[in-house]
Amino acid sequence: MSFALLERALELDRSDPLSAKRAEFEIDDARIYLDGNSLGALPRAAAERLQKTVQEEWGKDLIGSWNEHAWIDLPITVGEKVARLIGAAAGQTVVCDSISVNLFKLLSFALSLRPDRTRILSERSNFPTDLYVAQGLQKLLGEGRCEVRTVEKEALENSLDESVAVLMLTHVDFRSGRIHDMAELTRRAHEVGAVVIWDLAHSAGALPVALDDCAVDLAVGCGYKYLNGGPGAPSFVYVASRHQQSAQQPLSGWMGHAAPFAFDPDYRDGEGILRFLCGTPPILSLSALDAALDVFQGVELRALRAKSIGLCEFFLEAVLSSEVLGDFELASPRNAEERGSQIALRHDDAYAICRALLENGVTPDFRAPDLVRFGFAPLYNRYVDVARAVHTLERITSSRLYLEPRFAERTKVT
Amino acid sequence: MSFALLERALELDRSDPLSAKRAEFEIDDARIYLDGNSLGALPRAAAERLQKTVQEEWGKDLIGSWNEHAWIDLPITVGEKVARLIGAAAGQTVVCDSISVNLFKLLSFALSLRPDRTRILSERSNFPTDLYVAQGLQKLLGEGRCEVRTVEKEALENSLDESVAVLMLTHVDFRSGRIHDMAELTRRAHEVGAVVIWDLAHSAGALPVALDDCAVDLAVGCGYKYLNGGPGAPSFVYVASRHQQSAQQPLSGWMGHAAPFAFDPDYRDGEGILRFLCGTPPILSLSALDAALDVFQGVELRALRAKSIGLCEFFLEAVLSSEVLGDFELASPRNAEERGSQIALRHDDAYAICRALLENGVTPDFRAPDLVRFGFAPLYNRYVDVARAVHTLERITSSRLYLEPRFAERTKVT
Repeated sequence: MSFALLERALELDRSDPLSAKRAEFEIDDARIYLDGNSLGALPRAAAERLQKTVQEEWGKDLIGSWNEHAWIDLPITVGEKVARLIGAAAGQTVVCDSISVNLFKLLSFALSLRPDRTRILSERSNFPTDLYVAQGLQKLLGEGRCEVRTVEKEALENSLDESVAVLMLTHVDFRSGRIHDMAELTRRAHEVGAVVIWDLAHSAGALPVALDDCAVDLAVGCGYKYLNGGPGAPSFVYVASRHQQSAQQPLSGWMGHAAPFAFDPDYRDGEGILRFLCGTPPILSLSALDAALDVFQGVELRALRAKSIGLCEFFLEAVLSSEVLGDFELASPRNAEERGSQIALRHDDAYAICRALLENGVTPDFRAPDLVRFGFAPLYNRYVDVARAVHTLERITSSRLYLEPRFAERTKVT
Repeated sequence: MSFALLERALELDRSDPLSAKRAEFEIDDARIYLDGNSLGALPRAAAERLQKTVQEEWGKDLIGSWNEHAWIDLPITVGEKVARLIGAAAGQTVVCDSISVNLFKLLSFALSLRPDRTRILSERSNFPTDLYVAQGLQKLLGEGRCEVRTVEKEALENSLDESVAVLMLTHVDFRSGRIHDMAELTRRAHEVGAVVIWDLAHSAGALPVALDDCAVDLAVGCGYKYLNGGPGAPSFVYVASRHQQSAQQPLSGWMGHAAPFAFDPDYRDGEGILRFLCGTPPILSLSALDAALDVFQGVELRALRAKSIGLCEFFLEAVLSSEVLGDFELASPRNAEERGSQIALRHDDAYAICRALLENGVTPDFRAPDLVRFGFAPLYNRYVDVARAVHTLERITSSRLYLEPRFAERTKVT
């Protein structure tokens, strides 16, 4: 890497309108963390809030905190903070359970909206848990009522016909970062009468999403990636207002009941989006996510996207112009408009390269079988991090350091 | 309350073999907390662990913590700590999701074990979310495949015939504290070929449970009551080894997959109990519960039960012999062997009495429409707490303090 690249990075950081946000996170300057799309960094406010939730609320006020500290409202309170980031008007978003569990609710509900159809159409490269949940529902209901069909991206539009009950897609591909055209695909699905579910796991908090404007029906997303809610943070669920009146979902737990504390033996749907709640909300996790979302206050989503594109382009230009990185193949779209906030490079030794980067202070992510994935979190990653990451990648590659046997040893989670 | 009662309480505390355990909790001596069966008190170790999980693991080691701090194993690690408390040999218990979500998994699986039957039999006074989840499954599958039938306790045995696929019961009744005879009911269910699911929400951590010895098929339970895992802590799931080979459940998320990080588009069941996991585990909540369970180390379950009975009996004797408490009707079994670790008193003004107790330093729980429920947590409640609670109840009752209008105002969660 040239001296000039680092100089340029420092200059870009100086003029970055979001540069002050980094100070709101606990970040070790010695590590270049480019995996915020797997697990977002720790917001200082989240750590403080957890401390308060544990010591003052749980520790002192105990059961009374459900009222006094409005624990009972957290799924809604936190949902409304997510709503702004995904282009959802009020009353359509709650936070609860995991993406997998929430997709089960939405898929069941979506199928019930098209009783004369059985097909769930998705992309073969969709994040696997989305497919697994659809397969689980298919097995439970039988193929006569639910039939999961997955096709390659290129075949999606042709497969979208009047046999499709539900189109389920992930907005930003977890490997390549490729963005689907949400407006267009939603429109095409609606033309053939299909219901659309979008998974926003790699979108929310990284780029503007416009669920209402795109007339999306249903959506889920992740609390622990760009939203920085902490490991295993609960997921969000969006149900467009127009569907709420008729909405029924099979995971009808007591928090979805119209009057949970009446202890009525018969289930009655709660008001609107509330009926998508199920069991007792995970207060510790919800509190952390609640505080984490406050970091987005005052952040324009356009500015977030501009910074994200800036970081990605800076990275790509350096990689593509580097002579020693010629063995890496770009596995993400070259056009910034078609990409989320991540870039994947393909290499036969991707796993060992990831391990070597880790040992040398850079955290990317490995995605089997051959991708090194770099995530760029516009709230806390700097241009100088990008320059150093490229420099480290060049050093590891030119020295062939990654070929040392220790980097080939597999870890449990990769 | 007589001077003698307090003297007797002090003496009982001095000879309590579990008395040292109280110091392992953050407890405000000014409040008498008798609602550990709604939300257990904060173990100091849980607060410390969360601090570490947040600052060191999430904050510093970030994504690497899935390996370095074995986050990925927590559902199992924590499950095995629960196992000792519920009489389960290794390899049968995991911790994940909520009771409601886990019951959906178990009910679906249990029905698949009896494909020629459709009926889920339960008790009308079961905890409502258990019934709601069964009703949700019935609505999804249709009555031709799943039919929920609830009966009064007295009618249970007669309703248990060869039409029943699944018997789903809560071991300790959430209102009265009445214990079902797990061994006998499981035996009777098996005689007619039914599969049995026990909900241990009000049992685990309060009294010995013997799932393996009773040949129970499936069970769930709560992390935030007597296990003290914190508000909304995840639930545990037990699946007897003999069923695991054939087990399939519809919430087949990526954590239940045989190789989650292979990102295979097709679901394949993980080994044994692992296939009951679904989405990404909630690490903050799991860490708190993990530490909370360590408080049980070295505690004999027989000693726990003896203390629990001791506290309940001391309370009951004082209440039943009190002249001013004559308007309260005992809504729990009088015989200690038939009761869990809680006592319910019936009174027309139960709600106002609960509010008045709260304002006067005693925390009971209200259960609609007319119960004041007192939970006794043998790890941290003292006999002197019981004596003071009875004294406060007498004071409020004899003065009719609870009739003041402010105590009639409803709170959101009751």
